[in-house]
Amino acid sequence: MKFRRSERLIDMTNYLLDHPRELVPLTYFAERYGSAKSSISEDLGIIKDTFEKRGIGVLQTVPGAAGGVKFYVNVDEKEASSLIDDLCSIMASPDRLLPGGYLYMNDILGNPVLLRRVGRVIASAYAKAEIDAVMTVATKGIPIAYAVAGFLNVPVIIVRRDPKVTEGSTVSINYVSGSSKRIQTMVLSKRSLSEGSRVLIVDDFMKAGGTVKGMIDLLQEFNAKVAGISVLVESEETEERLVDDYISLVRLSNVDVIGKKITVSEGKYRRISK
Amino acid sequence: MKFRRSERLIDMTNYLLDHPRELVPLTYFAERYGSAKSSISEDLGIIKDTFEKRGIGVLQTVPGAAGGVKFYVNVDEKEASSLIDDLCSIMASPDRLLPGGYLYMNDILGNPVLLRRVGRVIASAYAKAEIDAVMTVATKGIPIAYAVAGFLNVPVIIVRRDPKVTEGSTVSINYVSGSSKRIQTMVLSKRSLSEGSRVLIVDDFMKAGGTVKGMIDLLQEFNAKVAGISVLVESEETEERLVDDYISLVRLSNVDVIGKKITVSEGKYRRISK
Repeated sequence: MKFRRSERLIDMTNYLLDHPRELVPLTYFAERYGSAKSSISEDLGIIKDTFEKRGIGVLQTVPGAAGGVKFYVNVDEKEASSLIDDLCSIMASPDRLLPGGYLYMNDILGNPVLLRRVGRVIASAYAKAEIDAVMTVATKGIPIAYAVAGFLNVPVIIVRRDPKVTEGSTVSINYVSGSSKRIQTMVLSKRSLSEGSRVLIVDDFMKAGGTVKGMIDLLQEFNAKVAGISVLVESEETEERLVDDYISLVRLSNVDVIGKKITVSEGKYRRISK
Repeated sequence: MKFRRSERLIDMTNYLLDHPRELVPLTYFAERYGSAKSSISEDLGIIKDTFEKRGIGVLQTVPGAAGGVKFYVNVDEKEASSLIDDLCSIMASPDRLLPGGYLYMNDILGNPVLLRRVGRVIASAYAKAEIDAVMTVATKGIPIAYAVAGFLNVPVIIVRRDPKVTEGSTVSINYVSGSSKRIQTMVLSKRSLSEGSRVLIVDDFMKAGGTVKGMIDLLQEFNAKVAGISVLVESEETEERLVDDYISLVRLSNVDVIGKKITVSEGKYRRISK
């Protein structure tokens, strides 16, 4: 079966989008379409230019016998700003304010289109980093972790607050919640993380950073490394933050639960990922 | 800025894949590329043919002034069988067997590539159904729910076993677990579901069906309707199942925890969705 160029371009676009950060040999496409490698190279040139022009991502060509092409998600300043602006205006509603200075975010975290944009923007900051897995803690961080991991093409590891039979044997640690100063527990299934893994920690909300610090400690138990920390929302805290080196998309400040007021502004993302 | 056909095909493919089940007016693309509607129509014809030929999905043309084009994910028999076969062989390992006849599935549920395939296959069965949201219960069902919801372009609603401050006010119900016969609680944030919504229930594992039955009861509290039920794995139970009308990809039987044996076979998916 022979394929015309237009068909190849459509199918290759779909294939590359579906396999980010994976080295695809030119011969793979040549066989898939029964085409010469030179035609495939030309196709990839067109896709590369269009992906860059339309802000879809970057296509990297790896030369040589073991070579091929790799698709990386890549977000420009404009796309990042537009997402951050949208998030700020969605979150600014005082109706979202909950007791304790938390924010109601179920609708945001339940919106797959918005989450895809969040995933693209966060993944873009780590697209070329060596990352083996994305880790988060149940429950709210899960959708963000999957959105990011999809664009990085790595597995997701979910830490729980309580062991469950479906986890098999687990490793557990205690940590101190930065805000409430209470001692809490985190458990991770023993089989879910291998030694030496480089892990991107992702969460929805960070106050003092106790939960993220707990995940860092847990990584140590598995002899795994922190490859990055990224949160959707950080809340300004008067007290010292337990974690320094992180990316946030949005920042809450002047949280006034009684007066039902809140200030939402841009987080550290654009300052750090540039 | 003018676009050549090849660039339009690549960008439109990306756009359509990103916006399933959304009516995109031809004028949207015409303006996006500064092209005549007749050229856009031709482009869409090529994309439609390629999407069908390559099993990517279906492009439906809606004629008239309010018309446009809609992309639906559509999985053929071959893709569904190939996923089900892969799942069966991954799950058949006796190492996965946990006390109580549960199966260790964290690696499967943490694999974004496999989950995308699961999402495509399940979503395909409901692609043309009227569905407003996908519902699941924390924690294991969440990744499947997002994988499905992404292809249906609807929000995800997460039911919890325990209320949390970040949910705001909640509605809670009690239900009887079908396997253990214990009374359990389910809570759902009041704001997360509107009356009359048509909801697809998704979960990772179903034994007697108590949890799914709980979600059905919870939907009634919100005057919402069940639009479908889909599980990744169903486990054969000698006792009566509480839920009848569902789709499953994989079926466990002859679960022998002591002898470390298990039979994994095809679920009801292909019999029902055809």
